[in-house]
Amino acid sequence: MIGAGNVATHLAKALAGAGKRIEYVYSRSERSAAALANRVMAKIAVQPEDLPANSDLYIVALPDAAIADVVGRLQLDNNLIVHTSGTLPAGILAEASSNFGVFYPYQTFSMARALDFRHVPLCIEAGSNDNETRLCSLAADISSSVHLIDAEKRAVLHIAGVFACNFTNMNYVIAEEMLRENGIPFDIIKPLIRETASKVMGFSPSAVQTGPAVREDLNVMKRHLELLNSKPEYAELYEMFSNLIISEKKKNG
Amino acid sequence: MIGAGNVATHLAKALAGAGKRIEYVYSRSERSAAALANRVMAKIAVQPEDLPANSDLYIVALPDAAIADVVGRLQLDNNLIVHTSGTLPAGILAEASSNFGVFYPYQTFSMARALDFRHVPLCIEAGSNDNETRLCSLAADISSSVHLIDAEKRAVLHIAGVFACNFTNMNYVIAEEMLRENGIPFDIIKPLIRETASKVMGFSPSAVQTGPAVREDLNVMKRHLELLNSKPEYAELYEMFSNLIISEKKKNG
Repeated sequence: MIGAGNVATHLAKALAGAGKRIEYVYSRSERSAAALANRVMAKIAVQPEDLPANSDLYIVALPDAAIADVVGRLQLDNNLIVHTSGTLPAGILAEASSNFGVFYPYQTFSMARALDFRHVPLCIEAGSNDNETRLCSLAADISSSVHLIDAEKRAVLHIAGVFACNFTNMNYVIAEEMLRENGIPFDIIKPLIRETASKVMGFSPSAVQTGPAVREDLNVMKRHLELLNSKPEYAELYEMFSNLIISEKKKNG
Repeated sequence: MIGAGNVATHLAKALAGAGKRIEYVYSRSERSAAALANRVMAKIAVQPEDLPANSDLYIVALPDAAIADVVGRLQLDNNLIVHTSGTLPAGILAEASSNFGVFYPYQTFSMARALDFRHVPLCIEAGSNDNETRLCSLAADISSSVHLIDAEKRAVLHIAGVFACNFTNMNYVIAEEMLRENGIPFDIIKPLIRETASKVMGFSPSAVQTGPAVREDLNVMKRHLELLNSKPEYAELYEMFSNLIISEKKKNG
């Protein structure tokens, strides 16, 4: 396992939990490597060059910007190597081995939060049928949701996830900040957050939009913008979203 | 029950389910009034003037802009009247009765989606202790989450909800559109949407932010902006959110 951050840690734990042996963990931070190695009973590689050349699979779960450098330092015997990036082409691994692919878990991972990996969609790409079969088989050992996804579709998934997850979480941050500044506990908004997500498990989000913008309730929107007077970035976001919601409504008739 | 939209319908069903009798339903749309009246075994008032003057409680669950007109046409015997608006002051009801208050359910309601009302926070405001007691008691009959919330805090809750719910749902709409345009089923993103919401049930959202912006992964962000080239509003939203996430991270050290 090359990397010891959020993705590497959750993935290594899931693999170890399915009885796969993690031989080595390498991380640019030795401390992170030690923490993960300890959890999955692996050895630590202090340098990429310390990794053995004969493992079945090398998983590169590093930030995109760090991958090329580390991959350039690996000495493999043409073994299978994959990365977990939503954005990079598989070919960035070609320097290390001619057997390369992608093993992209489509989920948001935080160290502190445990997660049932069986429900994490795994997006697989491989250059050969043989490697595809191997990766799909491994993926099926830890998840019930395995998909063959090419580079173009993977990029679309990634950016859609940035909106649905990362930007949504920022909306939660904004809400939490507003509540905190007014002495209201965050707990009171949790049922609303939960229901907003639960709704779209069974309905298209465009069919269940609610709020002042979709009702074109201009008085409420004006009042809200006045309340956001002291936070110009939030006011700008408010206007942009409201306009998008109104045009989306018109688009759907 | 004055109104027969999303809020009125869910609230009337919850009240009827708790053994309260809904005597009459009035809606500006007679068809909506008939649909709701039918569900809760109530009579229909075709005009606000047709409502009886001796009900225990009048609940005005109308769009904000429609409230003043309808309230001006009610003929009450100083009975208790409440509205369900997050934005309007309770005093807008003073024309109808000197016993007025607010009964604000803090949730997103859609007609087609059933909901367990016991987990819906109910925000109560009343001008007198007596009315406060009556409204809290009624609220406790249908929900386990009853809160005394004044007008100022209610407005904050409302706008925080617009970000956490309405704008979040628009993020889901954007994600769904991108996936659909690339032939990817919406189902694949559902575990991510669910986990993003579930995470903040136990963690502060600012502690679990993930994605390229919080990692300041400029290459990924640049690539995403290129992919959004044909959708300038989404690109603008992308930049704005990414900047907010980066400054939030710096704020928290």
